[in-house]
Amino acid sequence: MSFNTFGHLFRVTTWGESHGPAIGATVDGCPPGVALNEAVIQPWLDRRKPGTSKFTTQRKEPDEVRILSGVFDGMTTGTPIQLMIENTDQRSKDYGDIAQAFRPGHADITYHQKYGLRDYRGGGRSSARETASRVAAGGVARAVLAQLVPGLKITGYMVQMGAKAIDRGRFDAAQIEENPFWCPDPVAAIEWADYLDDLRLNHNSVGAVIEVIATGVPAGLGAPLYAKLDSDLASAMMSINAVKAVEIGDGLAAATLTGVENADEIRMGPNGPEFLSNHAGGILGGISTGQPVVCRFAVKPTSSILTPRQTVNTRGEELDLITKGRHDPCVGIRAVPVGEAMMACTLLDHLLLDRGQTGGIRGHIG
Amino acid sequence: MSFNTFGHLFRVTTWGESHGPAIGATVDGCPPGVALNEAVIQPWLDRRKPGTSKFTTQRKEPDEVRILSGVFDGMTTGTPIQLMIENTDQRSKDYGDIAQAFRPGHADITYHQKYGLRDYRGGGRSSARETASRVAAGGVARAVLAQLVPGLKITGYMVQMGAKAIDRGRFDAAQIEENPFWCPDPVAAIEWADYLDDLRLNHNSVGAVIEVIATGVPAGLGAPLYAKLDSDLASAMMSINAVKAVEIGDGLAAATLTGVENADEIRMGPNGPEFLSNHAGGILGGISTGQPVVCRFAVKPTSSILTPRQTVNTRGEELDLITKGRHDPCVGIRAVPVGEAMMACTLLDHLLLDRGQTGGIRGHIG
Amino acid sequence: MSFNTFGHLFRVTTWGESHGPAIGATVDGCPPGVALNEAVIQPWLDRRKPGTSKFTTQRKEPDEVRILSGVFDGMTTGTPIQLMIENTDQRSKDYGDIAQAFRPGHADITYHQKYGLRDYRGGGRSSARETASRVAAGGVARAVLAQLVPGLKITGYMVQMGAKAIDRGRFDAAQIEENPFWCPDPVAAIEWADYLDDLRLNHNSVGAVIEVIATGVPAGLGAPLYAKLDSDLASAMMSINAVKAVEIGDGLAAATLTGVENADEIRMGPNGPEFLSNHAGGILGGISTGQPVVCRFAVKPTSSILTPRQTVNTRGEELDLITKGRHDPCVGIRAVPVGEAMMACTLLDHLLLDRGQTGGIRGHIG
Amino acid sequence: MSFNTFGHLFRVTTWGESHGPAIGATVDGCPPGVALNEAVIQPWLDRRKPGTSKFTTQRKEPDEVRILSGVFDGMTTGTPIQLMIENTDQRSKDYGDIAQAFRPGHADITYHQKYGLRDYRGGGRSSARETASRVAAGGVARAVLAQLVPGLKITGYMVQMGAKAIDRGRFDAAQIEENPFWCPDPVAAIEWADYLDDLRLNHNSVGAVIEVIATGVPAGLGAPLYAKLDSDLASAMMSINAVKAVEIGDGLAAATLTGVENADEIRMGPNGPEFLSNHAGGILGGISTGQPVVCRFAVKPTSSILTPRQTVNTRGEELDLITKGRHDPCVGIRAVPVGEAMMACTLLDHLLLDRGQTGGIRGHIG
Repeated sequence: MSFNTFGHLFRVTTWGESHGPAIGATVDGCPPGVALNEAVIQPWLDRRKPGTSKFTTQRKEPDEVRILSGVFDGMTTGTPIQLMIENTDQRSKDYGDIAQAFRPGHADITYHQKYGLRDYRGGGRSSARETASRVAAGGVARAVLAQLVPGLKITGYMVQMGAKAIDRGRFDAAQIEENPFWCPDPVAAIEWADYLDDLRLNHNSVGAVIEVIATGVPAGLGAPLYAKLDSDLASAMMSINAVKAVEIGDGLAAATLTGVENADEIRMGPNGPEFLSNHAGGILGGISTGQPVVCRFAVKPTSSILTPRQTVNTRGEELDLITKGRHDPCVGIRAVPVGEAMMACTLLDHLLLDRGQTGGIRGHIG
Repeated sequence: MSFNTFGHLFRVTTWGESHGPAIGATVDGCPPGVALNEAVIQPWLDRRKPGTSKFTTQRKEPDEVRILSGVFDGMTTGTPIQLMIENTDQRSKDYGDIAQAFRPGHADITYHQKYGLRDYRGGGRSSARETASRVAAGGVARAVLAQLVPGLKITGYMVQMGAKAIDRGRFDAAQIEENPFWCPDPVAAIEWADYLDDLRLNHNSVGAVIEVIATGVPAGLGAPLYAKLDSDLASAMMSINAVKAVEIGDGLAAATLTGVENADEIRMGPNGPEFLSNHAGGILGGISTGQPVVCRFAVKPTSSILTPRQTVNTRGEELDLITKGRHDPCVGIRAVPVGEAMMACTLLDHLLLDRGQTGGIRGHIG
Repeated sequence: MSFNTFGHLFRVTTWGESHGPAIGATVDGCPPGVALNEAVIQPWLDRRKPGTSKFTTQRKEPDEVRILSGVFDGMTTGTPIQLMIENTDQRSKDYGDIAQAFRPGHADITYHQKYGLRDYRGGGRSSARETASRVAAGGVARAVLAQLVPGLKITGYMVQMGAKAIDRGRFDAAQIEENPFWCPDPVAAIEWADYLDDLRLNHNSVGAVIEVIATGVPAGLGAPLYAKLDSDLASAMMSINAVKAVEIGDGLAAATLTGVENADEIRMGPNGPEFLSNHAGGILGGISTGQPVVCRFAVKPTSSILTPRQTVNTRGEELDLITKGRHDPCVGIRAVPVGEAMMACTLLDHLLLDRGQTGGIRGHIG
Repeated sequence: MSFNTFGHLFRVTTWGESHGPAIGATVDGCPPGVALNEAVIQPWLDRRKPGTSKFTTQRKEPDEVRILSGVFDGMTTGTPIQLMIENTDQRSKDYGDIAQAFRPGHADITYHQKYGLRDYRGGGRSSARETASRVAAGGVARAVLAQLVPGLKITGYMVQMGAKAIDRGRFDAAQIEENPFWCPDPVAAIEWADYLDDLRLNHNSVGAVIEVIATGVPAGLGAPLYAKLDSDLASAMMSINAVKAVEIGDGLAAATLTGVENADEIRMGPNGPEFLSNHAGGILGGISTGQPVVCRFAVKPTSSILTPRQTVNTRGEELDLITKGRHDPCVGIRAVPVGEAMMACTLLDHLLLDRGQTGGIRGHIG
């Protein structure tokens, strides 16, 4: 059961509103004996933090994480880890306009309908600011994974902005950190910069597609049938703000393949079976194969734009709404570190779950 | 926590293997006082059952459901409902070939790796036969929904086979039950028949895209942030065999939209706010808006084909494998009633969850 | 979340009513690779089954368990194990009297109040018959424990019937299987036989206290703070029909001790630390110490007696009710194997949970 | 699943160590629209806080709670409520002696064994200081209950210190707040003061029995079979530090009753059925009857005493340990508000759970 908790054994509960005193994550089920302090987590937060380029919100948040519990002498103790990030740059007055009116395409109206009241300041709980808590928790997950599965590596990047997809032929992992879009295609990165500048100046925003890949994932992770690794990844990614689609491996394109094409054929390599392709995205029957785990998700455009849109308010009056405030023209950009964090949490969770269920039993081949 | 359980309050645990004595579902958390007997559930199973056309497996299973508990005098009692479907047409000898060899693209290898052993007969637990249990549980969910939310209606259909999509201009809901593909486009249905016949005769298979729509869903369902309605639907659909992608509303296409285009603008109608479009697929911030809930998922092609594919066996020997047995050339077809069942279970679950959390509080507009 | 499910990772969902077609347990999370078949489980059921002496209900139930899933070639596969026990000797006509009337001291009235309707036949879901499902699941847990922790041993026995307690000076474990009361004190056993005979002939019943001890439990099991081993044992035992109190170690008597008396002092033995006493009942801070885990629970007298008691019926009419049917004069007797089963399930669950969380990390002493 | 979370729908996760920067509780699943602020919670904390009499620890903690999220404009919003209490009076140097040595009767040794390391300062996570977080969460639960079930009242008090029980004939609820022991018997209160003074001066401590009663509880709360109200209360109370036994209604004494005596007979009163006695403690079949819910628990004596006790340290050396620091001579005293808090959380949780499952269906009588 959960409302605000994610995970089976590595359980992350995020809390906090955009303009409250703080946000954070309660991380329960973290294994003991892992080296951890704020300095281990902070770099991941710095990657997501607002105000790093003109393409993200100009809100200035240091996003400094504090560990309030669960760590002693620089080591996790197996008790709950409380991660707190204070909110420092709230400008709630920017949000007076949406106190009663509902931004089209935004959660304003559904929170009002469900709860009868809502913290409208900056979107309250539905703000993408919550994802900082996820990234902090992901930092903990990464620290544990680094100790338990040293070779595991998680990399996220943007593969499409609006209708503009990268050219896979130009894919260069070294480029990802070199532009404000986490874009592995340097040509696309330049094109996107112009495109997004234009949109921003025209008071518009745009969607994106993010890909997250994990390599070095051991075979055997995933708990069929309803806690399959892909099922949990789908849940994890779809829970991120603005996400409307999740794909594993070939994803939607798998529908267009024939069985002959889709079969990831297997040969024996020096260290056991090897797949000749990876249409499956590293997951078969909900269980990892040992190949790279490949997940993509689509992010819709930011709803908060300066172009007027038709809407109503709580009194049932019709109006045209312009959303002021400091918003990302492409929320997909900052979703990259969030997707990585969700991948890290999900993989660690399944590592622990598998350890609990099978004790690491593995069937021999060869 | 779950391995084989789905849902928060309406909890469905499926059990059983393809060639064991029976399969079934333990349904816990069903509200009391709902009229239920086998005749209420059986029609849904009949829609999914094998052997109904040449386009589905020729295995002959009556798929007769028995209710073993939780119902008294034709009414649910609030106690667990045990649904059992006996397996009657197992031909385990067909599976001798895959006892030791792994079908490429199939869960054979990952079950072996994770568990050290597996029931290889008919795919065992990873067989699509398990989805009959889901459909039975979905029948219970539908009976409850019919009583609690009379206007709610769930409809699934296939919108794409291989690369061949329907023409939305020809969409005719009345056609869905008129062809073996649950296809709302009568022209596409004819085309698909030829295409699939061809593939089948060529010992091949193909993927598909299914769409499931629920209308009459009350606003306010969904428990942010990690039990969002869309997040749980993604998990539900991705847990179905062979599914590789899930979309809500515009799905992947949302990435290509601008904020101006994507905004579902709102006007006041006679009964409250009305949306002028439904890019969101009926869900904003993880909570239902009252518009139709729209979900799509992509199914990969059947891995079990008569065309030889390269693989290895448990002894590490390389071989070319042909999968005999009675397999669906397009598993997407029978995934339609399964998708509907998962939609029904998810919506009921969130109806109960919302009742538990908010007691049906709703914010007024107008 | 659960209504009818017990356990974190080793999850047992029982289902079924006293007079329905069958009862059973869905066991999810059982590790793979454990030898299991019906013959392994049946002996535990035979210990609990009705009609074995004049001191238990004369209902004749063979209580034969069938495994419907989760086992292949005599080994668990890691998938859900469905255990089914058919009901064969229902005499529902015996229960006409309680269809509308509520037995004082029984769940009749609360089930009616909560659910609006109930399966009154034989107590329906609230019947102690449900505990057969627990014993079956406990049989699975014992088989797994036998493989994972060979030295672990669970023993239950009755230490008090009515006000008549055993004399601990006469405690002889060999006696437990030698009398119909699972009584370790042969003198008390004889006294109890006369006492219970008398009560039975006087249309009365009586309560009891059961003790369950587990030896060979590894140190380190238990997940503080809310899934402590003692907290979960308390929940497990209190969920058994008619149980009104649970004690760990010295239990209530601990309240009367001083800190000086209560301290289980520690010395170094040849294999590590040794405790000089066991007031704690093998659990400190919710975590097992390696000493015997000692749990006791009190069972109230059977409510279904032939002596008339004042009550009302659903129409609000007052009446004097005599409960016919075949009831145990001391339900505590058959609660002994049930308590053992709950101990087995709880210990296995915590073994898996600890494996998931700590991976079996243990702090060194010495 | 949980390690540090309590509850099904009203979910409380406590976090924090005795000598870390702060402790707190993450409360998820709180219904929206309930008036809440720090002033509503603080009085409950003040009742539990240390240093209020010479009979509790002399640690001076203001125990001021801060609400960091989930409340807007003085109302709950349905999102997670973060409650933080800063630690201000840590004297970690007092604990140098137990950094390596294990207090007999304490969780020191089991935490070391399970986790391989532990925050030894003040007992770290196993300190009774954690119960302040429970009391804070209980304050939230009480605020919700006050709104949803106005007549519900929860009262805790001590009924036994060491072997000295109150005289039920002198029971006077008005006395409970008049002495430092929450003792309803003014004569016993005086006697206990002398007794405890003596023990304290003799470097000793003692156990106690606490009773918590809830009146005005609606009939129908409790989710059989494994989330029974009594089963969940047992788990809740047993999870409190130092608790070794839990009783419902007559508890252990129920074992000594006959069926004739134990039957709570029923007559029709002006407002429906009335029970003539309450041996059941307000719970039948795991479901509340509408009578007062009566729960008792036994607390063992404090392990941290100034009298030397034999023990070992992490190096396996034997030693005699005196525990300095500021400890309660009878932890039972401060367990009273904690027991009340656990009762409040459990009742609210079951109110929400029942609403989710049955929607408040109730069977009519009369």
